Amino acid sequence: LDRQKVHSLLTSLSKGERTVTEIYEELKTLPFKNLDFARIDSHRSLRQGAPEVIFCPGKTAEQIIAIAQELKSQHAVVLGTKASAEVARSIKKALPETQYFEASGLLIWGQIPSADPNSQQVAVVTAGTGDTPVAEEASLCLQAAGVRVERINDVGVAGLHRLLDVMGILQESVVCIVIAGMDGVLPSVVAGLVAIPVVAVPTSVGYGASFEGLAALLTMLNSCAAGLTVVNIDNGFGAAMAALRIMALRNIKSGT
Amino acid sequence: LDRQKVHSLLTSLSKGERTVTEIYEELKTLPFKNLDFARIDSHRSLRQGAPEVIFCPGKTAEQIIAIAQELKSQHAVVLGTKASAEVARSIKKALPETQYFEASGLLIWGQIPSADPNSQQVAVVTAGTGDTPVAEEASLCLQAAGVRVERINDVGVAGLHRLLDVMGILQESVVCIVIAGMDGVLPSVVAGLVAIPVVAVPTSVGYGASFEGLAALLTMLNSCAAGLTVVNIDNGFGAAMAALRIMALRNIKSGT
Amino acid sequence: LDRQKVHSLLTSLSKGERTVTEIYEELKTLPFKNLDFARIDSHRSLRQGAPEVIFCPGKTAEQIIAIAQELKSQHAVVLGTKASAEVARSIKKALPETQYFEASGLLIWGQIPSADPNSQQVAVVTAGTGDTPVAEEASLCLQAAGVRVERINDVGVAGLHRLLDVMGILQESVVCIVIAGMDGVLPSVVAGLVAIPVVAVPTSVGYGASFEGLAALLTMLNSCAAGLTVVNIDNGFGAAMAALRIMALRNIKSGT
Amino acid sequence: LDRQKVHSLLTSLSKGERTVTEIYEELKTLPFKNLDFARIDSHRSLRQGAPEVIFCPGKTAEQIIAIAQELKSQHAVVLGTKASAEVARSIKKALPETQYFEASGLLIWGQIPSADPNSQQVAVVTAGTGDTPVAEEASLCLQAAGVRVERINDVGVAGLHRLLDVMGILQESVVCIVIAGMDGVLPSVVAGLVAIPVVAVPTSVGYGASFEGLAALLTMLNSCAAGLTVVNIDNGFGAAMAALRIMALRNIKSGT
Amino acid sequence: LDRQKVHSLLTSLSKGERTVTEIYEELKTLPFKNLDFARIDSHRSLRQGAPEVIFCPGKTAEQIIAIAQELKSQHAVVLGTKASAEVARSIKKALPETQYFEASGLLIWGQIPSADPNSQQVAVVTAGTGDTPVAEEASLCLQAAGVRVERINDVGVAGLHRLLDVMGILQESVVCIVIAGMDGVLPSVVAGLVAIPVVAVPTSVGYGASFEGLAALLTMLNSCAAGLTVVNIDNGFGAAMAALRIMALRNIKSGT
Amino acid sequence: LDRQKVHSLLTSLSKGERTVTEIYEELKTLPFKNLDFARIDSHRSLRQGAPEVIFCPGKTAEQIIAIAQELKSQHAVVLGTKASAEVARSIKKALPETQYFEASGLLIWGQIPSADPNSQQVAVVTAGTGDTPVAEEASLCLQAAGVRVERINDVGVAGLHRLLDVMGILQESVVCIVIAGMDGVLPSVVAGLVAIPVVAVPTSVGYGASFEGLAALLTMLNSCAAGLTVVNIDNGFGAAMAALRIMALRNIKSGT
Amino acid sequence: LDRQKVHSLLTSLSKGERTVTEIYEELKTLPFKNLDFARIDSHRSLRQGAPEVIFCPGKTAEQIIAIAQELKSQHAVVLGTKASAEVARSIKKALPETQYFEASGLLIWGQIPSADPNSQQVAVVTAGTGDTPVAEEASLCLQAAGVRVERINDVGVAGLHRLLDVMGILQESVVCIVIAGMDGVLPSVVAGLVAIPVVAVPTSVGYGASFEGLAALLTMLNSCAAGLTVVNIDNGFGAAMAALRIMALRNIKSGT
Amino acid sequence: LDRQKVHSLLTSLSKGERTVTEIYEELKTLPFKNLDFARIDSHRSLRQGAPEVIFCPGKTAEQIIAIAQELKSQHAVVLGTKASAEVARSIKKALPETQYFEASGLLIWGQIPSADPNSQQVAVVTAGTGDTPVAEEASLCLQAAGVRVERINDVGVAGLHRLLDVMGILQESVVCIVIAGMDGVLPSVVAGLVAIPVVAVPTSVGYGASFEGLAALLTMLNSCAAGLTVVNIDNGFGAAMAALRIMALRNIKSGT
Repeated sequence: LDRQKVHSLLTSLSKGERTVTEIYEELKTLPFKNLDFARIDSHRSLRQGAPEVIFCPGKTAEQIIAIAQELKSQHAVVLGTKASAEVARSIKKALPETQYFEASGLLIWGQIPSADPNSQQVAVVTAGTGDTPVAEEASLCLQAAGVRVERINDVGVAGLHRLLDVMGILQESVVCIVIAGMDGVLPSVVAGLVAIPVVAVPTSVGYGASFEGLAALLTMLNSCAAGLTVVNIDNGFGAAMAALRIMALRNIKSGT
Repeated sequence: LDRQKVHSLLTSLSKGERTVTEIYEELKTLPFKNLDFARIDSHRSLRQGAPEVIFCPGKTAEQIIAIAQELKSQHAVVLGTKASAEVARSIKKALPETQYFEASGLLIWGQIPSADPNSQQVAVVTAGTGDTPVAEEASLCLQAAGVRVERINDVGVAGLHRLLDVMGILQESVVCIVIAGMDGVLPSVVAGLVAIPVVAVPTSVGYGASFEGLAALLTMLNSCAAGLTVVNIDNGFGAAMAALRIMALRNIKSGT
Repeated sequence: LDRQKVHSLLTSLSKGERTVTEIYEELKTLPFKNLDFARIDSHRSLRQGAPEVIFCPGKTAEQIIAIAQELKSQHAVVLGTKASAEVARSIKKALPETQYFEASGLLIWGQIPSADPNSQQVAVVTAGTGDTPVAEEASLCLQAAGVRVERINDVGVAGLHRLLDVMGILQESVVCIVIAGMDGVLPSVVAGLVAIPVVAVPTSVGYGASFEGLAALLTMLNSCAAGLTVVNIDNGFGAAMAALRIMALRNIKSGT
Repeated sequence: LDRQKVHSLLTSLSKGERTVTEIYEELKTLPFKNLDFARIDSHRSLRQGAPEVIFCPGKTAEQIIAIAQELKSQHAVVLGTKASAEVARSIKKALPETQYFEASGLLIWGQIPSADPNSQQVAVVTAGTGDTPVAEEASLCLQAAGVRVERINDVGVAGLHRLLDVMGILQESVVCIVIAGMDGVLPSVVAGLVAIPVVAVPTSVGYGASFEGLAALLTMLNSCAAGLTVVNIDNGFGAAMAALRIMALRNIKSGT
Repeated sequence: LDRQKVHSLLTSLSKGERTVTEIYEELKTLPFKNLDFARIDSHRSLRQGAPEVIFCPGKTAEQIIAIAQELKSQHAVVLGTKASAEVARSIKKALPETQYFEASGLLIWGQIPSADPNSQQVAVVTAGTGDTPVAEEASLCLQAAGVRVERINDVGVAGLHRLLDVMGILQESVVCIVIAGMDGVLPSVVAGLVAIPVVAVPTSVGYGASFEGLAALLTMLNSCAAGLTVVNIDNGFGAAMAALRIMALRNIKSGT
Repeated sequence: LDRQKVHSLLTSLSKGERTVTEIYEELKTLPFKNLDFARIDSHRSLRQGAPEVIFCPGKTAEQIIAIAQELKSQHAVVLGTKASAEVARSIKKALPETQYFEASGLLIWGQIPSADPNSQQVAVVTAGTGDTPVAEEASLCLQAAGVRVERINDVGVAGLHRLLDVMGILQESVVCIVIAGMDGVLPSVVAGLVAIPVVAVPTSVGYGASFEGLAALLTMLNSCAAGLTVVNIDNGFGAAMAALRIMALRNIKSGT
Repeated sequence: LDRQKVHSLLTSLSKGERTVTEIYEELKTLPFKNLDFARIDSHRSLRQGAPEVIFCPGKTAEQIIAIAQELKSQHAVVLGTKASAEVARSIKKALPETQYFEASGLLIWGQIPSADPNSQQVAVVTAGTGDTPVAEEASLCLQAAGVRVERINDVGVAGLHRLLDVMGILQESVVCIVIAGMDGVLPSVVAGLVAIPVVAVPTSVGYGASFEGLAALLTMLNSCAAGLTVVNIDNGFGAAMAALRIMALRNIKSGT
Repeated sequence: LDRQKVHSLLTSLSKGERTVTEIYEELKTLPFKNLDFARIDSHRSLRQGAPEVIFCPGKTAEQIIAIAQELKSQHAVVLGTKASAEVARSIKKALPETQYFEASGLLIWGQIPSADPNSQQVAVVTAGTGDTPVAEEASLCLQAAGVRVERINDVGVAGLHRLLDVMGILQESVVCIVIAGMDGVLPSVVAGLVAIPVVAVPTSVGYGASFEGLAALLTMLNSCAAGLTVVNIDNGFGAAMAALRIMALRNIKSGT
């Protein structure tokens, strides 16, 4: 496309249809637009129907509302992450159709598409019930992108046998997001059992020497299970986006 | 195999060749062996020709030699990571064919296979020349598994334009491993430019408030670029294994 | 039970009542159930009438209510730890028989059994009155398991002579749980005076450079008194469970 | 004894054999000796043939030699912990019979007694070969006290099935010391599988975000497995002493 | 001036107009007054019409009101930083003309002067909308000193092309204040693109491993872009004052 | 006294007035009582009219009320430190004569004695108005012990000349307590100017990289001014008690 | 220039001297070169004869030699920072003209130019003699850029009067770099006395709770003196580059 | 003195013996000299024969030699602290009379004076033999100032009864310096037993979670024993200087 544009510009100059100055002025703006375009393009392939996501901390309700409205005019689903209950209340007054998940601080505008039951699935696994909000953030971000999600909850050390029960589900997934607070042990165990990519998410669930998720984060970074990768504490959204990158890769590279 | 064993046990019982008690005693030990089998199986698909890797810290030269010899008898390539120069010297005396890369502490026994030039490639990118040892660890682990690696060095902030020069290479890769010390900024920039999975590796290069790589690690965990995942400081091996998981996924899922 | 099931399966095969394939199919699912069984068994000996305990942080009131009701149908006493006052209020509305200890965040459903006055006792010792909530958590968890508890409060440095006064009680106990915030000195002193196992619990009582219990935790981990062991900050429950493990040991080993 | 001494002093006064002043002078020194006695007594039951142990860091070779000689005159076995290779060399020159284990920094003077094969055993388990030096420190401290030790090495996540293979050994032990560096996951897994007391020892094995054992320490303190207790990083000696406290308890309380 | 005063004192003594004692008494107080004067003088050149600023944390509303009234009697504009909403409410009751910016906690008394459109400008750049409050603090402090400010918002990694769009504005500025939370990457990128002084301000925007701005702070301190300087987390005021120092330098040095 | 008691016991035995067993029983309890007595004695000299102080965190209002009432029955002034506003409200309902200083969390029961204007004074110096609550805690604890206190506020770096103005007051004091948040620089400056003992108190005033007072604490611990000593963050009480120790020393040593 | 190049390209096309394809091919490479050029341009103005600087950590002697030789062929002075003594020895063997300053780890190739005695000066101030190596790094980087440097050493708290003695020198400088370890107090004091820009450099001089310079860093970030900016621990080079940015600004903006 | 100088200057002016300009020139230099003088004066009272002390880290052997020679020409005893063995060797070559204590890194030039046996004593107490070097630094600094020092070693938790044995010595001292590594418990215990000022010195003795003395430091800062003050880790010199301040106070204030 851009290539064509440059060619056509040069051709029109070559043909004397436009002046050097005119062409120069247009060319001058191209590098950035090119870059811009490239980036949008790269994102387009990444997102493939992915929802637009607003990171809410530090933004006022008014700012979030304005951004959400603008994005909603162009996308089927828009999400907001880490929104406080107070900000959510203000937003709901202005945009009553807003859905709010208080535990995870997630905002949703629009209808989550239903996934093709034959499509590839991502397993979203939690160690404990307390990790559910982060799993919800990851799952909804994936579902908003049309991805089929298999939720598996509460299979930590105390329920290790339940993990073994669901190993079949894990092995049928293309990516596994494993979410754990406190000691953060579960992702290491899962990564030792499956060969697929495992994205570990530490959560701030715990107390005392969990230091708001630091303990779980360090456990995961030091995992003896080779090939585990980690995202920020409570970052369900980031894990979902990493999963989308891996899935997009498959789509792009193997044909489409 | 195991499946066959259970069948044959049951058949021998069914045929009256052995007693219930005998069969029970043998079955009692099977669950773990089964699990063992399952785990080996999962690893097999993961490794697909991957080298065996020995984590050297805390092990004596004698222990490493013994393990290396045992593994070498079964695998074409065996690697050792994070070996000190002193330990490496002792090992080379006993096993003169050992190759040692002092900067990265990597040991190699056996011949790195040459990669198929048409196969998928992994880009291994560093921010600075000082990050090269970690890149070497990642690259050799990948190459030992038969993966084609594209090395791109020294494209940090001070050489951002060089990064743009190689964007084509990045976009032709299936995974991008980005390695940076000091401020750890590069992976965020790369992940903002490409849609493929990006695995970030912080390094301990730096001084003062880099706190041995902590600064770079935190930068990467807090990245504004969505979908970046992170491994431990200086963990080139872990990044390579994560890349193998992602590539194996592609092979398995879109191949079969 | 499980053992019997395997036997009966094999017997039915041996008798020709069922086919090899049928039996195989049933056996295939057993390993995990076996493991499950093993774990429950190991826990049974551990728990010996121990209460079931729900870790509340991150769970909604609804989730806690559902779990509590399910557990209560099978156990005489069910506990919940680290519940916030707000969550407790919601739970009490649904389950009015709930007892709530606000300082320690402990929830109790059911009747704490009265301990046999001749049975072994555990000493639960605090350095200051501010450490009482953690002591309460430890004591109630032990009492819910039928253990006799001797509470000794406020015997820190400022009251060292009071500690000496109660040394007799300590020496008559089988385990001593010592709880201290701020400088966390008390467990070292106690462990220097008694020969029985001492479990140290740092608390978050303090301010400034206590860093929410970190100072007390480090003091205990670096104790010059040999053989002191430590649990997480404010983890009265964990200390109680460690005491149960030690006591169960005694029963099992010196009983059989 | 002391009791007898006080009685005999008082009796000699009562009989007029000694004067009030004489008796007063002797009694004046008793309170501390009493306390001393109490403490020695409590330690005696704890130690029951336990070796005397010298903590070497910060002490000169000369100081260690002097202390060792004094202790050796009264005990069959004397140990020194955390001694540097340089200090050990100086000591061996003066005391050639000194045994030195460089990896663990352990010094031994005297003959480790052989344990009664029918006596209770302690399992000392490591996650990786690199954790062996700490296991050696724990094991030798126990063996010097006459305790039977079962060593189980290298059963971390990558060898979980091997852990299951040795579960029988664990269940036949009275205490289990579990030693792990890097992610420190193993003690949680073990404590989830056995009912006996588990003492967790984090090690400084690892690199990067292991922060010299901090990651493993935090994992263990936040363990989801109830009743796990923890000692300082690399503190094999402390774990052994905790095990001795638990074993001594059994001996004292159940009869002898 | 002072010099003249000393001279005139000495002259009056020399002329016999005043006694040695009188002159001595006056001289005795001079050193500190001199120093005092020097400091005021140095500040005067620094401030050049700068607003007086009250640091509010730890002060009561009553204390702030008293200080503000005193300062307002002498200055056109008085600012208060980091004031809580509660304190601001109390202040507004007493001083209704108070303006309060809740997000940044900034209080303003008096009229911000309008800047000369031909004067030098400072660029105040943010990575995300959430960083706006800190930018507001910096901008208003500058504007209160009569400085022309160019605000550029939301040009972080996700909007890098927008940064390139505004590079002209940056290059026309004399100082660039760059404000970023989370990964804190933006100042490094900006400092790599412009030659003017860049003052980096980390913000506490983020969650998890951002550790309240620590991650962004460390990123900036370790920047690979040479010559970047850093102020405290959320310290928009400090960045403004640093800019004033640089601008004053220019005026003083190239003017006289 | 105690000495006399032992003598009289022994004499009564010697005289046959009491039996060996009786005397033994009484002696057995003496060591601890002796110790108890010694400690009370040492404290008496320390406190010399000092107020009793209750550390409130972690205690319920009921517990504080009970302790305060008991102490008030024996002492003229009783203080409570670090009490929350909520707890204070509950206490005031029960004990309406309670005085509460909300900023410092200080509770006072009873009448602060007026100090002898000719007695030695302690200077309590703050860097900023925000440090006043901690200064108030220190000053009231001293005044409750009858000590004359000279308060000097707001003489930080920005008002260094004011510090020089009050140097006379400092030099007339026997101890100087210097209180500072943020950069914690003031105590170093004061200790460089005066020869008397200086006790430094870091405060939690600040934001961002002050890390709740950690920055000020570290500054003070690393002071280049020789002989500065430090107490915990916000610990005005501790500084007052250290001053009392120094003053008591003088009284004891040069008086008795 | 570039502008001219684009114009001449377009003109040659317009004139029919070259084909659309040829021009397109050349233009295709321009955007990055443009960017490159822009960056070089911005750097040129920044550097104005500044030395090229190699950051040595993590680079081998061979790599440093190769880079130094390449840079030396184009620049009068080339510097290397943070080089170890061992690496420096290897480099000196290959490049005997290398100058090495062991304390600061600085390498210099080429002749430091002598500064114009009438040019603007930068004051480089240290708190203690131990901070000299960092001051040397800053000074030599400035001198290599032709800047006149005034070195002022050892004017910390213990020598505050010496600081006052040199205040004249400070006030005649355009930038002041203040370097301090341990408590890091000096930059706050200097910034309180002068109106010029002050760049603070914490050093790792100290022990114990200096935590390798962290204490000094935090002191400086929390400075009560407004407008102080900070660079990384021991980063003399960074401070010099910040000073160059400020000086370049003056040159660019006020005339040339 | 100074006062006299000013008077005499003014008088000579008043008498016409000197001109206004002459007097002005002399007065101009006085303020700093005055300040200088004041500080020397304050130090003189502090030091009262105290040795001059050189802080060695970061200084070269040459620098230390030069400073030592200059100081030695004016003082009977000069000390150097924290000198490395390598630096000490170089110094001894140049100044053979140098005494060096390797464990504590202390250098001494000159003859330590012998203390008056009737003078006040300072008790220097260590928890373990490993803390001796820090005690040596404190003791020698005190002795060099002519203070009588009572050394009490190795009275930590494991030897608490020995502490009680020496309580008499403690109570006869005017200040008690208590030095402890690992858990840092001893100062709290001592401060609970004596009424005199207690200065606590944490040491870096320990391993693992002692974090180079941080654990001991935090323990001491959070001490429950009121009135304990703390200096930096391993800072024996600072504790000695604090003791000198307290002792000087006594001398000055109580009569002489």
